Amino acid sequence: MTAEIKFIGHIQTPYQSVEECPHNIQENGPECILCIDKSYHNALLGLQVDQPILIMYWLDGANRELLQQNQQNAQNITGTFALRSPHRPNPIGVAIVDIKQIQAGQLTVNGLDCLNGTKLIDIKPAIKREKQG
Amino acid sequence: MTAEIKFIGHIQTPYQSVEECPHNIQENGPECILCIDKSYHNALLGLQVDQPILIMYWLDGANRELLQQNQQNAQNITGTFALRSPHRPNPIGVAIVDIKQIQAGQLTVNGLDCLNGTKLIDIKPAIKREKQG
Repeated sequence: MTAEIKFIGHIQTPYQSVEECPHNIQENGPECILCIDKSYHNALLGLQVDQPILIMYWLDGANRELLQQNQQNAQNITGTFALRSPHRPNPIGVAIVDIKQIQAGQLTVNGLDCLNGTKLIDIKPAIKREKQG
Repeated sequence: MTAEIKFIGHIQTPYQSVEECPHNIQENGPECILCIDKSYHNALLGLQVDQPILIMYWLDGANRELLQQNQQNAQNITGTFALRSPHRPNPIGVAIVDIKQIQAGQLTVNGLDCLNGTKLIDIKPAIKREKQG
């Protein structure tokens, strides 16, 4: 069984190749911009600067069949669901970041780990355990 | 532009109707069971009891066209991306919970807020800001 997701925008990052991407979110990393498609601008109402948000994005080019793999820099084989690897049945990245700036359908955040042009799936306010950092 | 997600299992919760579902995760709420499809059991290798995990699940029946809505118990209209409402362009719920038990492709956790039978999309180890609670 499957479901269809529709992209709500894309992310501008400094990374043009997978090799350049950091392996995780960097709290003080470079500026990245969440560019929301015009048809979804109205859904941003109420988001505020300094607010922590949870974002989801589509890790294009992932191997979706890989059930076990080597953990980064490790010898042993680990199950995909015990890893943050982009290679997973549903290659959806999740990050919790603070909004630094909001302008005309664009949210500025810091230190994402994905390729420039990565497609955006959702933005939610971070809650409870997510927003404590 | 769209992408296809494939379900990796389903969730057993005590809730048979939307009205019964709590509005958020309840840390000490009732037991829920993540039932992983047999074809994905190998991807669980390495997950451990007491580990905090981030899970994603598909909120079936959501209104995917709603860009602004009333916040629960509030008069004012808010953008969908500033709310945790299930009614959103991509109705994917996210929760961070601790693994209480692991047995034969089933992970026991506490206090999810979704309907019995909700389809599961992903399991990842919680990291950094997510796991501090």
